[in-house]
Amino acid sequence: MTNKQAVDTRIDAGWIVPVEPDGVVLPEHSLLIRDGRIVALLPWAQADAGFEAGQHQRLPDHVLIPGLINLHTHAAMTLLRGFADDLPLMTWLTEHIWPAEKRWLSPEFVYDGSRLACLEMLQGGITCFNDMYFFPEAAVQAATEAGQRIAAGIIVIDFPSNYAADLDGYLNKGLALRDAMRDHPLVSFCLAPHAPYSTSDRSLEKVLTYAKQLDLAIHIHIHETHDEIHQSLEQYGVRPIERLRHLGLLGPEFIGVHAIHLLNEEIDLLAEHNCHIAHCPTSNLKLANGVAPKAALLARGINVGIGTDGSASNNRLDCWQEMRLAALLAKGMSGKAEIVPAHYALRMATLNGARALGLDDRIGSLEVGKQADVVAVDLSGPHTQPCYDPISQLVYSAGRQEVSHVWVAGQAVVKDRTCLTLDEAEVVGRAHYWQQKLSA
Amino acid sequence: MTNKQAVDTRIDAGWIVPVEPDGVVLPEHSLLIRDGRIVALLPWAQADAGFEAGQHQRLPDHVLIPGLINLHTHAAMTLLRGFADDLPLMTWLTEHIWPAEKRWLSPEFVYDGSRLACLEMLQGGITCFNDMYFFPEAAVQAATEAGQRIAAGIIVIDFPSNYAADLDGYLNKGLALRDAMRDHPLVSFCLAPHAPYSTSDRSLEKVLTYAKQLDLAIHIHIHETHDEIHQSLEQYGVRPIERLRHLGLLGPEFIGVHAIHLLNEEIDLLAEHNCHIAHCPTSNLKLANGVAPKAALLARGINVGIGTDGSASNNRLDCWQEMRLAALLAKGMSGKAEIVPAHYALRMATLNGARALGLDDRIGSLEVGKQADVVAVDLSGPHTQPCYDPISQLVYSAGRQEVSHVWVAGQAVVKDRTCLTLDEAEVVGRAHYWQQKLSA
Repeated sequence: MTNKQAVDTRIDAGWIVPVEPDGVVLPEHSLLIRDGRIVALLPWAQADAGFEAGQHQRLPDHVLIPGLINLHTHAAMTLLRGFADDLPLMTWLTEHIWPAEKRWLSPEFVYDGSRLACLEMLQGGITCFNDMYFFPEAAVQAATEAGQRIAAGIIVIDFPSNYAADLDGYLNKGLALRDAMRDHPLVSFCLAPHAPYSTSDRSLEKVLTYAKQLDLAIHIHIHETHDEIHQSLEQYGVRPIERLRHLGLLGPEFIGVHAIHLLNEEIDLLAEHNCHIAHCPTSNLKLANGVAPKAALLARGINVGIGTDGSASNNRLDCWQEMRLAALLAKGMSGKAEIVPAHYALRMATLNGARALGLDDRIGSLEVGKQADVVAVDLSGPHTQPCYDPISQLVYSAGRQEVSHVWVAGQAVVKDRTCLTLDEAEVVGRAHYWQQKLSA
Repeated sequence: MTNKQAVDTRIDAGWIVPVEPDGVVLPEHSLLIRDGRIVALLPWAQADAGFEAGQHQRLPDHVLIPGLINLHTHAAMTLLRGFADDLPLMTWLTEHIWPAEKRWLSPEFVYDGSRLACLEMLQGGITCFNDMYFFPEAAVQAATEAGQRIAAGIIVIDFPSNYAADLDGYLNKGLALRDAMRDHPLVSFCLAPHAPYSTSDRSLEKVLTYAKQLDLAIHIHIHETHDEIHQSLEQYGVRPIERLRHLGLLGPEFIGVHAIHLLNEEIDLLAEHNCHIAHCPTSNLKLANGVAPKAALLARGINVGIGTDGSASNNRLDCWQEMRLAALLAKGMSGKAEIVPAHYALRMATLNGARALGLDDRIGSLEVGKQADVVAVDLSGPHTQPCYDPISQLVYSAGRQEVSHVWVAGQAVVKDRTCLTLDEAEVVGRAHYWQQKLSA
């Protein structure tokens, strides 16, 4: 007879970096999981003494971190990766991306593209992504089949697409999807009006009504380009953020994506309204839009998470690159090397993303009671040696190729670098299929 | 009886990107090697018809590129990777790096650290590196044993170190090494005065004398921080570049590292004197020094190569990250998305580096007659699919983990991601040994 508690899974790691509390490293600790939740974090010897595990995974050269949260992407756009590079935003959108989408967009395209994205993201330790794209039902299907968390966007845009004809079409389809999937444990929803320049006041007012009624976040591109701001000044007499404030959209449910070109008073507005920012540094540089004023946003206490953007503009769905670049740019632009230290960059890519999505009671850190969204990172290779500080190693030296194991809600989805929930050959085969079609 | 030419090695690749001519992609081509040199690049069928190969490597999902050239590093500093992060340059140097070096620097330290660097760099497709550090004989030993090309720095710095006591000590030791190794096919030399703030006029004059006499490049940190410039103004009445011009150092043998803070007239000076720049974007951001004015440098026709810097300030000896970041920053800072397109970023990390080192008659591109420094990059994985444009995929999607095979002067040094010339377990074991010592 034993007094040991039964758990489903025990993971012994060289180190655990729980993210909360900030900067803590727990050496030679075990993480214990029951019913998809974290039951305990404690030293190996105490885990031996107190717990009996169904599965026991020993990873002595690895560090465990919370699953990474990709706070902004268009997952299905993997199928347009490298389709049109080295072009400015509007040329890229209007002459390449939009025509291709008009021609090819379908549930099948979104399902295949999202599966490719899920595979890439899971293998890179991204356990949750905030998606904005057409046919969100196909992305939700891809993510749930892959065992990955998705915050699906109820997309709204003021032009017809293969997906929907008008405002009511977009809203009705998105809301029906939410009704159908709202109890799925891996699925949550945001309202996702595309951008101020592509949604009218009437559209945004309707979005706001539903956001309040259904308690959903609002996920929108904002102040990405100078053109967007000039156009708003011409059309509405105010800059986009002021227009959104006037419409009542700013608030703790607001996730503004990009937020590059900001006046000080706009930063104040975002802070006063407890808005969240999805920072996408690679996309912002690649499309020549600039660099978000991260130091100023953080100094005002604004919650900033990390997004990859879609792979047509990045072209890596890689939160490792984004968190490293977020830290590097914050230092380089501010002239202060101590800004965004490694542990804070990791927090941006995990807990800050969860907060923005309103999911920080469930995910974003490795704390007892939270969902077991866990990533194991192998630090034994030559390019992560020596290891004076595992958190520094994670942010500045490691990359997605060091991700060896991933669990979502306690379920193993990547093991020894292989995705267990998606057939890699089949997913890549579908990418080839679409490449042939789009290249023709 | 056959009319086929005998070659040592034939590599069949899905694509070859020779870098010269610019932007060219050769689909389903073979690269043929004899006596360490490239004999031919031609379609598979023509290779079948014309050549008989001792070794035949088939890589149909891979792209072949020239070996990457790391134009600025301090290889042995791998042993200080993550030792002191998130600090400004002078605090980092004076309170952390220099004291650790004073305590631990030895030929053994440099040999072990350089071997770790060689392993990391070779696995990431870097076939040649321009090194600046103490005990260069130990770095040369590490590189030549690893079968990697090194441009070794004859280091000069105006303070005593464990390596040398004074100017004559530094110069005599470095020049003796050059005399001993000058005929080694993988070894070349630069004079490497550390920086304007750490070398007197007398030191720089002597460096220049030897550079002219021996036809060697001069490899020096330049305009990295505002402090450096202020100090020069106080001490010499002019900014560092003007001081170097006055001393006669600027010229086609000059490789200026960093070159962040530049006046327009300084860019003009660098252009007029045909100087080369080693651009180290990650290090410049991480130490909060800023961003080099790459668009302006390129607009003036200045040759810019790519460097990782040492892994105490980067912390990845990863030319993939650097070339991607070089392209991204050029776009984001200039506001022009078309600046530094993918093919030019690749050129910066290969042929431009070779030009700066005066080795472009031998390496930097895949051309008949050049040395067979070749890297195979596996584009079959999910995160490099679909593949509309292999060059875009190389720069914006791929990373060092896609490097599968590496040859230097026709010798296989990495095969199926395993380094053939270094014992990984032993090299990592030595990193652990130093970690224990430095942590104590």
